[in-house]
Amino acid sequence: MHFDLLDSCPTTRARRGRLTTAHGTVETPCFMPVGTQGTVKTVGSEDLEALGFELILSNTYHLSLRPGADLIERIGGLHEFMDWKRSILTDSGGYQVMSLSDRNKVTDDGVTFKSHLDGSQIYLSPEKSIEIQAQLGVDISMMLDQCPPYPCTQEKAQEAMRRTHLWAPRNLKARREGQAVFGIVQGGVHEDLRHESASFISGLPFDGFAIGGVSVGEPTEMQYPVVEFTAPLLPHDKPRYLMGVGHPRDIIHAVACGVDMFDCVLPTRMARHHCLYTLQGRINANNQKWAEHNDPFDPDSVFPATERYSAAYIRHLFKAKEPLGARLATLHNLAFYARLMAEIREAIPSGTWAALEARYASA
Amino acid sequence: MHFDLLDSCPTTRARRGRLTTAHGTVETPCFMPVGTQGTVKTVGSEDLEALGFELILSNTYHLSLRPGADLIERIGGLHEFMDWKRSILTDSGGYQVMSLSDRNKVTDDGVTFKSHLDGSQIYLSPEKSIEIQAQLGVDISMMLDQCPPYPCTQEKAQEAMRRTHLWAPRNLKARREGQAVFGIVQGGVHEDLRHESASFISGLPFDGFAIGGVSVGEPTEMQYPVVEFTAPLLPHDKPRYLMGVGHPRDIIHAVACGVDMFDCVLPTRMARHHCLYTLQGRINANNQKWAEHNDPFDPDSVFPATERYSAAYIRHLFKAKEPLGARLATLHNLAFYARLMAEIREAIPSGTWAALEARYASA
Repeated sequence: MHFDLLDSCPTTRARRGRLTTAHGTVETPCFMPVGTQGTVKTVGSEDLEALGFELILSNTYHLSLRPGADLIERIGGLHEFMDWKRSILTDSGGYQVMSLSDRNKVTDDGVTFKSHLDGSQIYLSPEKSIEIQAQLGVDISMMLDQCPPYPCTQEKAQEAMRRTHLWAPRNLKARREGQAVFGIVQGGVHEDLRHESASFISGLPFDGFAIGGVSVGEPTEMQYPVVEFTAPLLPHDKPRYLMGVGHPRDIIHAVACGVDMFDCVLPTRMARHHCLYTLQGRINANNQKWAEHNDPFDPDSVFPATERYSAAYIRHLFKAKEPLGARLATLHNLAFYARLMAEIREAIPSGTWAALEARYASA
Repeated sequence: MHFDLLDSCPTTRARRGRLTTAHGTVETPCFMPVGTQGTVKTVGSEDLEALGFELILSNTYHLSLRPGADLIERIGGLHEFMDWKRSILTDSGGYQVMSLSDRNKVTDDGVTFKSHLDGSQIYLSPEKSIEIQAQLGVDISMMLDQCPPYPCTQEKAQEAMRRTHLWAPRNLKARREGQAVFGIVQGGVHEDLRHESASFISGLPFDGFAIGGVSVGEPTEMQYPVVEFTAPLLPHDKPRYLMGVGHPRDIIHAVACGVDMFDCVLPTRMARHHCLYTLQGRINANNQKWAEHNDPFDPDSVFPATERYSAAYIRHLFKAKEPLGARLATLHNLAFYARLMAEIREAIPSGTWAALEARYASA
């Protein structure tokens, strides 16, 4: 995998770049739709291709429990399993171990946890996480880290950072020939810890660098300073990835801080809760005001994947609990995010960042 | 609407024909996917177009309760509402009134029933049903009839037939200029009643003729004789429609009896219960034997809409309760039915009916 910086914004720290993996190129800044269980909910690989996404995220934790990394490896890897021919990044499983497992016990060695599916006892370590991601055959693996919750004390944030730093070299040592692994900076909302973590992780030969531990429940006014402070501390010549973020305005903010990559469940999860992103703001499709609206929700947010359907029809699908409703809303929101990223990539070299911010101010 | 007979089978009563409506042509014999609430579950109009369907069925009862026939009329009709540019047939609502409403009271005047959605009291009559279907703006309306349940006594079957005959002219009288209405033959499993009903209904100026009251729970060995006996009694120069049927072999049997049109929830409903039609028989996608099957379920049943996905992947989607599973299985089953009908239409003029029957013997 390699990363080329192509352009920079004359008024912000935003960068325009290109990742190249064994499965093609990924224009950055990019957004990764989240395919937790080897599928972005309600849509197929053909839909993601049509929407123009070049990189998607999937979850090591979920896939290793079901159908199992061994099975996916025997089939030929996750690309073959879901017939996705472009690039894939997987998280390390660490976040889900903390948030989903019934009980987990973290030591410096690794994490022991109970499967949320059947309660079976499972062990995850940096070596194991990297091995699973190699079995899945993805283009970008994430290091196993420890993500502290929010709120937590500075001591707990520091302890999670210490363990993350302890694990970082073990992740790197475990990687197979040619496996790209990204490092993760922790440190919670504490500037001194973030500085220490960015400094340590940046010194290791990772292929990219992520800001972890944000978007874990903290308010936006605490998230933004962490991004502003941490992003510029990461190596200039490697891709920078802000994990789990976010709304369009959060992405625009982070790009302006120098971030290149994003993932978030928001566009897909919100869609299933009848919430659609538009340039006029987020829309509740169930609202009575759309009942007879025989046009799209927002004339400025109309996409090929869904343009034939009216607000009235999509509202009806949700009211009638028809599965097509969630699918159309998901296609709409993913198309909104795809356009957002395309316009971000255009605005960077053209020096029109302020206009871009204004355009998405309500989104 | 008009109907042209194009060919006939040299060895059976099967007919090859073409329906022409204001929304295009429909090659017959044809199968109508069921879009109960103005959507064929999990798929969009673009999917149905790609699968090649020219006529779909929707339900007057469901649409009139939600979102309401008045609303759909104000929007411009059901075609506009769901953006389906080809032909639509609606049932009369009678069947659902009997099967779904909390309480219903049938008199010679009409049916009073409680909505299954909110318990509100609603009245349906032949005039009202035809009016609602006109409001929906569909290409083919079905007359309001009374469908007796199975099992029922000959007296009850006779009473339902009597009322159906009483209502038939009222349906016709209520139709708007240019509205195509199909008559329905009742009579349960009783040959004498079917004869009487076919004779009476055939004498009225309907645009097509349906065999109703089959596929209501009776065993196949009782259904087949009804179709064999009734179909030839219907006018030769009008389309003949067997309501609610069925499995591929049931359709092949009925076509050989001279039936032209079919609808059934089986391909879509079975799909949501992880059951896929193939030439090798119906498959339970959840079966362990598919867990590592990195090819389609059946090499003889591979379709453009789903060919990129393996049995292992679709099984995983079902096991993980991912909505894409039901969608892919629905696309598969609808494609199976679309191919079945295309091959039926080819076999009729080419005199290869026996080969067709053999090919689908396990389906």
